[in-house]
Amino acid sequence: MPAKGVLVAVTADVVVAGGGVIGTAIAWRAAAAGLDVVLADPAEGDAASQVAAGMLAPVSEALFGEGTLLRVNLLALARFPPFAAELEQVTGHRVGLRREGTLAVAYDAGDYAALMRLTAFRRSAGLDAEELDSRACRKLESFLTPDVHGGVLFPSDWSVDNRRYAAALREAAAAAGVRAVPDRVTAVLTADGAGGAGSADDVGGRVRGVALADGGEIGAGQVVVAAGSWSAAVHGLPAALKTAVRPVKGQLLRLRHPDGMPPVLTHTIRATVRGADVYLVPRTDGEVIVGATQEERGPDLTVTAGAVHDLLHDAMSVLPVTSELILAETCAGLRPGTPDNGPIVGGSGVPGGVLLATGHYRNGILMSAATADAIVACLTGQPPAAEWEPFGPGRFLAGEEGR
Amino acid sequence: MPAKGVLVAVTADVVVAGGGVIGTAIAWRAAAAGLDVVLADPAEGDAASQVAAGMLAPVSEALFGEGTLLRVNLLALARFPPFAAELEQVTGHRVGLRREGTLAVAYDAGDYAALMRLTAFRRSAGLDAEELDSRACRKLESFLTPDVHGGVLFPSDWSVDNRRYAAALREAAAAAGVRAVPDRVTAVLTADGAGGAGSADDVGGRVRGVALADGGEIGAGQVVVAAGSWSAAVHGLPAALKTAVRPVKGQLLRLRHPDGMPPVLTHTIRATVRGADVYLVPRTDGEVIVGATQEERGPDLTVTAGAVHDLLHDAMSVLPVTSELILAETCAGLRPGTPDNGPIVGGSGVPGGVLLATGHYRNGILMSAATADAIVACLTGQPPAAEWEPFGPGRFLAGEEGR
Repeated sequence: MPAKGVLVAVTADVVVAGGGVIGTAIAWRAAAAGLDVVLADPAEGDAASQVAAGMLAPVSEALFGEGTLLRVNLLALARFPPFAAELEQVTGHRVGLRREGTLAVAYDAGDYAALMRLTAFRRSAGLDAEELDSRACRKLESFLTPDVHGGVLFPSDWSVDNRRYAAALREAAAAAGVRAVPDRVTAVLTADGAGGAGSADDVGGRVRGVALADGGEIGAGQVVVAAGSWSAAVHGLPAALKTAVRPVKGQLLRLRHPDGMPPVLTHTIRATVRGADVYLVPRTDGEVIVGATQEERGPDLTVTAGAVHDLLHDAMSVLPVTSELILAETCAGLRPGTPDNGPIVGGSGVPGGVLLATGHYRNGILMSAATADAIVACLTGQPPAAEWEPFGPGRFLAGEEGR
Repeated sequence: MPAKGVLVAVTADVVVAGGGVIGTAIAWRAAAAGLDVVLADPAEGDAASQVAAGMLAPVSEALFGEGTLLRVNLLALARFPPFAAELEQVTGHRVGLRREGTLAVAYDAGDYAALMRLTAFRRSAGLDAEELDSRACRKLESFLTPDVHGGVLFPSDWSVDNRRYAAALREAAAAAGVRAVPDRVTAVLTADGAGGAGSADDVGGRVRGVALADGGEIGAGQVVVAAGSWSAAVHGLPAALKTAVRPVKGQLLRLRHPDGMPPVLTHTIRATVRGADVYLVPRTDGEVIVGATQEERGPDLTVTAGAVHDLLHDAMSVLPVTSELILAETCAGLRPGTPDNGPIVGGSGVPGGVLLATGHYRNGILMSAATADAIVACLTGQPPAAEWEPFGPGRFLAGEEGR
């Protein structure tokens, strides 16, 4: 029921706002489930998932006090390989899944003590972790500095080539009939009781579509907001949700082997160098990703001299041969962070029936497949997996739910 | 007198091979002197002069044992300002000449001792140099680290924005009637005694033009090879000249101030940090150039992780605020080095009357104006300035001159 003078150019069963891996995975799976889907994003190639290392590493990411997050991450890790296999089969493209495992190394004795404390915690949670002395670390990765104090192998922490994965998702979505609209969703629209038009925070009506930056609308009975750290800019969501998602800047480097140099790494390396964390993720095509900063600087995408220096310094400290690699690209992205570091997936407590899939912070790629499952379940009236229960939007809406 | 089947598409009085600042400055001045000039270069924007800091710094570059080079550099420095003024007047564009001077700083006591030895030498050569203690250095540049041991101000060592300067030269050359041919000169052609065609190292005939990579020719009675480190690839030059020019790789960084940050530098800073040299050159438009490596790696233009790390590390050591600047660009260029670090300017001893203007190594921008004067003198039958006498090609042709 469009407002006077506003063109509804497109209608669909579902509009997904946001063309990163989360939104695209949702759009693909929703279309595969028989829904008519529009994916709206102005610049899908600029999503945070383009600036990512593609680690699928819930074990070496697990921190004290994040038990429910660990459970949903493990669900996501189990889901990823069959999801990626289907994606590769549908598109005919490899996504660069690597299963060699992750080697966490500690540069000095203090770093080692911290790693051992985390390892004890991870083991107590039933996770697989193999302690290695310095020599055993270098047996796995011969270019590690002899100065490395020791390490832990996490065999089930893998990686994927984030850019290949994102490109394959876009191709699969298009092949499944998803229509792409290259514009930004500015508001979720609801129909109020009087039959007029309004946004969801004005009234309590059912969602009826989205407004676009160019002034058009897309009519749809269901809306999924999966716009990463930009989700907070979509009008029509409860105010508490807008403040629950913030951009956390990450800078990383894409290195490349010079012609003729054999690969310097096979495992993902996570290193702690005098308290600073750095990771190096090898790609099947010869790239090595080095990341990443975590900066609370708002929506700033500049690459800074200090961050590049520190990443190179820490990478060279544990893997000196890094200095010989080509610096192919420096980049910055914005991860959608939340107050409890957990994602926001589902529709609990959100007026109008709008679904959210954001706040994946450092684990957007890892969680993409399982998030798509959860959102498609919501869209088709099924219950999502129980692991998602703690991560609904309702947890940030105390006191607002009645609105 | 073209060979059968070869198209002479263009004729001119003079062909200049090489579209960096040396070649373009020569072309402009030759055209201004009334000659009909063709400038041949496949990718003028990729010249080494694009990857440069634009230092006009003969004093702080002066090294023991390079007295004749110092004299020609001082000639070049004196010539630069009026040349740049004419260029700005002709084109209406500013080239970013900065006359604040160069501050050389020493990071530790060893660096300071080395700087003092060089300063004594430079003063003995009559050069202007003002010793400053750490506090005085920081009075000139407030963002310098307090750790700086001391420094020397070289007030007559300036800088220019190399990219603005190169763009203005191209515009001035075009306005003066220089015709640009976007192709690479592969050979200098001479007319042999029998009237046929040959290249200069086959026979002793007079130059008659150049061959191009696309198979065409340019007919011209005078040829200037100003192709930087690629000059050695031009056929028809004596073999000894080809080996006299080698590429010396230089990597540098272009940093930029974030919006709203006041300029962190006014002088060019040359620093020695535990024996390693680094410079920081501020631009009027807010860029800061950090350079440069000197690497003997042949024609390799890759940017390496180790070089970027070391440049950032050394820059941040003397000017910690560098870490807050944006890393806008990393780049690599090839300087044309020679065995004695001096340029090769003129035609002494070269068969066929071919002129050379190459081998300017680290000082191509500084020497561009004076080199143009010297080559235009040769082209018009005048004697170049006496300072050029030691830098003719003949010094590398002992035993080959009779050929």
